[in-house]
Formats: sequence, structure tokens, C-alpha cells
Amino acid sequence: MSTNTVLSSSSPAASDEKPILYSYWRSSCSWRVRIALNLKEIPYDIKPISLIKSGGEQHCNEYREVNPMEQVPALQIDGHTLIESLAIMHYLEETRPQRPLLPQDVHKRAKVREICEIICSGIQPLQNLIVLIHVGEEKKKEWAQHWITRGFRAAEKVLSTSAGKYCVGDEISMADCCLVPQVFNARRFHVDLRPYPIILRIDRELESNPAFRAAHPSNQPDCPPELPNK
Amino acid sequence: MSTNTVLSSSSPAASDEKPILYSYWRSSCSWRVRIALNLKEIPYDIKPISLIKSGGEQHCNEYREVNPMEQVPALQIDGHTLIESLAIMHYLEETRPQRPLLPQDVHKRAKVREICEIICSGIQPLQNLIVLIHVGEEKKKEWAQHWITRGFRAAEKVLSTSAGKYCVGDEISMADCCLVPQVFNARRFHVDLRPYPIILRIDRELESNPAFRAAHPSNQPDCPPELPNK
Repeated sequence: MSTNTVLSSSSPAASDEKPILYSYWRSSCSWRVRIALNLKEIPYDIKPISLIKSGGEQHCNEYREVNPMEQVPALQIDGHTLIESLAIMHYLEETRPQRPLLPQDVHKRAKVREICEIICSGIQPLQNLIVLIHVGEEKKKEWAQHWITRGFRAAEKVLSTSAGKYCVGDEISMADCCLVPQVFNARRFHVDLRPYPIILRIDRELESNPAFRAAHPSNQPDCPPELPNK
Repeated sequence: MSTNTVLSSSSPAASDEKPILYSYWRSSCSWRVRIALNLKEIPYDIKPISLIKSGGEQHCNEYREVNPMEQVPALQIDGHTLIESLAIMHYLEETRPQRPLLPQDVHKRAKVREICEIICSGIQPLQNLIVLIHVGEEKKKEWAQHWITRGFRAAEKVLSTSAGKYCVGDEISMADCCLVPQVFNARRFHVDLRPYPIILRIDRELESNPAFRAAHPSNQPDCPPELPNK
């Protein structure tokens, strides 16, 4: 277990106990939550769960008790264990309102959630590790490219009316927490990103943000020494 | 376009114009939103989008302007067009607080969203029509069964601590709006549901609820005369 000490605390949370994030360095769903925790300046410990070691530590009996979906992330916080990245981000938003991840305006909130869902239900589930294992080595690159391209085409269209500096207007939101890790995945699968100038611009904009940088796979305690795509 | 007249109005919405739901009778994502609208007694018109006619009406240029993901549902409401079922349900919750779809308690809210995400990102995206077309006729049944079984195993485990009469306690929530259509899909793909007694009990409990009954595929204007699995 390693301590994330990049950002300091200002959490007014119910419980003083430090949250524990079950995370894998390259998991885009873990990464979303790491960004959200960092943005809200909630200090947390990371418990790495290797998705590849010994056939995947997420499948062991002990971890199945933590997350019955046998995937990361899971967050132990305030005496509870939460799973599913969007549920976790909403919980953080409702218990730690500092540095909001959702806009005040109800239509903008809907737009943020639309972009989150395009990524979290429309893209990521179709290109995650367990699905690609099922698809098979031979077809997996084409399969991943197909679904990422389909989702990014829609996301770019939504962003063309919603984006300011970030996904929705000029404030960082949950949508940005989802977008940046998905762009990383797109690059891993060699998706041609040139048709998505807004996505690329937002990704570039957030690259140097400290909360995003600290959450990057290359800055995780379980990142192997030589990281591809750093 | 047909009018849903099963439930009467009590909407205190910003706009008086009747919402239009782009829906397909058998789409589980459309069904979630139909239930939510019915529970909140928001009258709406249905504009059917056939996912099979002419290669799928959701792919035509006109509809792509409505929903760039080229899928249902989409909801025109309060002068805006919303997509993604969970984003739509949250919007309804935030603008029409009557008959809440989320509990007051923040931990119960997280539990509702966990169950929603297990279904909406963990199961449905992997067994929806466009993915199964990609998987191919020969393998599609086994593929769908695999992912539904995996998700239901996790959902049953979560429900073992969260469920009362419904998914989370004794109040109907967004989670129930997601669960019932997914059980219908599981039956379509001949998933053995006996290992999931809590899921089955909740599904049975909601079968006779008027909001759920009115939203059922068999009661949709675009349902073909002879419906399988009625």
C-alpha cells in the first residue's frame, strides 16, 4: 500500500480515516477516481490490484468480497466500500462538495453526465481487458478501435456544443475525469485521433493539471519501471 | 407518434411542452426512461425509432442529429435534447423531484448508482444489438449469456445487503428502473435465473406496478402484434 502524497488534504468528510483506493495503474476506471480524489484534495492510500499478475488479482476470493464485479476501482471511505467509478465520483461530490465535479446548472449537469455515459457505458466496457481477452488476440485491436472510434465520433459532436476550456464550459467536471483516461486508451490502441480536435484540445489542456498529472498511470506506485506511452 | 396516456400529469416542470421520447419498444435503455417518466407521472409522447427497419432508423442522418450515438433513447424536454438513460433519469430527478428515484441517504444513493452502473456499463453495453451483430449470429447467445451472468452474479451479491422490497430498501429507485428491463433481456437470451433469487423477487414485485407495466415492451405503440416473452 502506498500513500499518495502529491496533493494535500482539505476534506470536510464525515470520517477522518484515510480512504483506500483499490486501483491498477493502467485501469482507466481507477484513473477517473484518482483524478476526482485529487481534484477534491482528498488524501488517500492506494492498494494496487494487478489485473494481470496470477491471472488477475481482481478474481481472488478476498478481492471478490470487496468488489463482486471483480474489477477496479473500489473505494473504502467513511466506513463503506464503494464500487463503480461513476457511483464513487457522485458519492465524493455529495459528501465533499469542495471543488465541484458537477456544474450548478441542471442542463450543464445533464451534459456532463451524457459525456460520462458515452465513455463509461458506450466505450470503455467494450474495450476493457476482460472483453478483449474474450474477443481474442487476433481481433482485439480492430475491435477496440471500432468502439472507441464510434464513441469518440459521438463525444466530439456533443462537445462541439458543450465544451469551453473543458468538456462542459470552463470548469473541470466528471466528464473530464472520464475523457482523459479514455484518450490514453485510444492511443494505446492506435486510434487515429485527428478527426477529434476538441477531444485532443481538452486532453492537452488537462495534461499539465496537477490533479490529472498525479493520477496518470506513470505516476502510480504499481507502474512498472518502463512505461509505454508515458 | 403516439401519446402515452396511461398515467396522468403532476409535473411542476419548467416547460409546459410535452416531452418527446425517442424509444424502441424492446430497447432496455428506452424502457428505463419510460419507467422513470411514468413513476414521476410526467406525460410524454413517444416517437418510435425502429432499430431493425431499413438497417436501423437510429443510423439515419436526421436521427443522428438527435443522438450522435445513434441509439435510443433520447428525450426532448424543456427545450433541450438529452441522451443516455442515466443522464436523463438524473435530469428528471433534478427537475421533477416528485416521487424520487434516489434515496435521501448518501450511502443508499451510492448503492443505487452502483447497481445502475453494474447494469448500464457492466452488462447492457455488452449484450446490446449492435455489439451482438459484431459478435456474429453463431456466437451471440453464448456471448450475451456470459456477460449477463457475470453481471447478475455481482448484482445479486450487492443486492444481498442493499435490498428491501426493492433494489435498495423499500423505495423504488433508478436501480429498479434498470434492473427490470435487464431481467427481460436475460430471459430473451435464456439465462438461467435460478441462482439470483433476490433479482427474481424484485422483478416479480415490480411486475404489477402500473408505472412498470405501462413501460413494458408489450405496451408500446411500436410493439409488433405478436410479442415474444409477453
